[in-house]
Amino acid sequence: MDHGKSTSAITMRDVAKAAGVSVATVSHVVNDKAGARIGDDAKRRVHEAVSRLGYRPNALAKTLSQGTSRFIGLVADAIATTPFAGQIIHGAQDEAWKHGFVLLVANTDGNKAAEDEAIAMMLEHQVRGILYSTWYHREIVVPEALHQTDSVLVDCFADGSGLPAVVPDEEQGGRTATDALLAAGHRRIAFINTTTPSPAQTGRLAGYRSALESAGIDFDESLVIPAAPEQEGGYASTTRIVDSKATAVFCHNDRVAMGLYDGLREQGLRIPDDIAVIGFDNQDVIAAHLRPPLSTVALPHYELGAAGVRRLLGLETAPSEHPQLIACPPIPRQSI
Amino acid sequence: MDHGKSTSAITMRDVAKAAGVSVATVSHVVNDKAGARIGDDAKRRVHEAVSRLGYRPNALAKTLSQGTSRFIGLVADAIATTPFAGQIIHGAQDEAWKHGFVLLVANTDGNKAAEDEAIAMMLEHQVRGILYSTWYHREIVVPEALHQTDSVLVDCFADGSGLPAVVPDEEQGGRTATDALLAAGHRRIAFINTTTPSPAQTGRLAGYRSALESAGIDFDESLVIPAAPEQEGGYASTTRIVDSKATAVFCHNDRVAMGLYDGLREQGLRIPDDIAVIGFDNQDVIAAHLRPPLSTVALPHYELGAAGVRRLLGLETAPSEHPQLIACPPIPRQSI
Repeated sequence: MDHGKSTSAITMRDVAKAAGVSVATVSHVVNDKAGARIGDDAKRRVHEAVSRLGYRPNALAKTLSQGTSRFIGLVADAIATTPFAGQIIHGAQDEAWKHGFVLLVANTDGNKAAEDEAIAMMLEHQVRGILYSTWYHREIVVPEALHQTDSVLVDCFADGSGLPAVVPDEEQGGRTATDALLAAGHRRIAFINTTTPSPAQTGRLAGYRSALESAGIDFDESLVIPAAPEQEGGYASTTRIVDSKATAVFCHNDRVAMGLYDGLREQGLRIPDDIAVIGFDNQDVIAAHLRPPLSTVALPHYELGAAGVRRLLGLETAPSEHPQLIACPPIPRQSI
Repeated sequence: MDHGKSTSAITMRDVAKAAGVSVATVSHVVNDKAGARIGDDAKRRVHEAVSRLGYRPNALAKTLSQGTSRFIGLVADAIATTPFAGQIIHGAQDEAWKHGFVLLVANTDGNKAAEDEAIAMMLEHQVRGILYSTWYHREIVVPEALHQTDSVLVDCFADGSGLPAVVPDEEQGGRTATDALLAAGHRRIAFINTTTPSPAQTGRLAGYRSALESAGIDFDESLVIPAAPEQEGGYASTTRIVDSKATAVFCHNDRVAMGLYDGLREQGLRIPDDIAVIGFDNQDVIAAHLRPPLSTVALPHYELGAAGVRRLLGLETAPSEHPQLIACPPIPRQSI
């Protein structure tokens, strides 16, 4: 990757720093805005910094002469519009800003035509590169046009595509959840797993099995209960959980745990006294606000976005054959 | 507003339409990409359309010559990163696409420096205009730089700023919620209102009062219960709700309703048989998934984003002295 050219471009921020003023002040002075209350001394310092640094106010002219802009594109299926993975944008944005880039977000809501057009538009505007990201971890077919620039897959992967990918470590996350229940003394631990085939389904199950094995506990197939990955699935699993005599439950996600809470309450069971529960995702709006607040394992959305930008800019390297795994940390609350 | 220049610019999309091929095909042909499997006939049609329409593949060169780009900027405080108002982005994006613009989203998470810089960057890149939007309805202080281009406030307002604003109709929403309870025969209706001063606090209360008045019911101050606008606030209101002998409750938002559900259940009260509940927001992840599914009133986030773009492009006009009000529609489920 060649990012020397773009990172050496002079921005308003550089001018502001050199002149010791705010970016807004630079903007006012450079655009010669009538009526802005800027002192003569500040004006002088801005003009000096502009001339010393060779700053050209028109970013587009600069982009034309250099061949890349200071944009990084983020093509998302539904991240900006679903209440789930927004922190991917937050992390990518913070990391992009840190290196003087602006994140250009196009949320396509899974519309293939909109996606093609967004990528084409980004290429026309000569972005530094494109992050292609999905709102949940899954395998994708790479849009052909992504190969026309530097691209990184975030929260998704495409084996054999040659594109670097950054994804959550589902197996470590499943192990972490199960370990938290084991650490509290539980030995008979049920796992309500999703019925949706996905890296989360297989990875979290592998982590659950591996944690049990390390603790010397035999895997018992009957303790793995398939359910729809939302409140309704958790609620519907209540009878099987009660019948299983499990003293603790690892739920595929926080929504499942929320439904199970309702079911257990109806059975007169108290959490965590009668049965311990741990979720997965650390979903805003839900996890911290259940009664009792839900212990869970976080999906590292912020870190996925930030790591994606670092990979794109060549600031962090990893073998491209396999997705780079980002750890899912435990979030202890009161349900264990 | 002068949007003739920018809307007449020729895009890849125009070429694709004229040539009867996909945008990706145009991109391949225009960028003369080796290895792309494009038929000779399609290539010929693209080249003909390019020459007939006068399309220039470099969007930046075109922008420079025209003075505005095909970007609309969206400066958001935390819309893309909180699980709440993401549909503002969805609506703005769909409407922008419809008119040949790409939405450039900068989510600043309330960081003033990042915000100033995002606006400066958008101005440098000669956006068609800027939507300035907040994740909940509130009054703002307008960043000075917004006056340097066409700007529209979305889900926020600044009286006297001269900028057009598009906000939800909180009062109509409060009336709609109360009317839904009245229509089910309830006469003694409590209102758990937020303790946070906001247009939602005053507007929804005004709507509640106005609906009662239209139904010939005296306003009873003791039925308005202040609470923190989240699950914990709803739960904490349980005793006052039970003591009030209300047969129905209008909750300031869905999170409050979720907490109240827990409290009422602990008291052995069934929803809606013993007491009816309606929420507000129609918050994803929660409203449809409570037991029973929560009847509520939707915040029109999608429509706010779309209306903001239409105002910006001059496709919809309204007096600028007052914010334009967007209706909050009822979402009936099973809690009434």
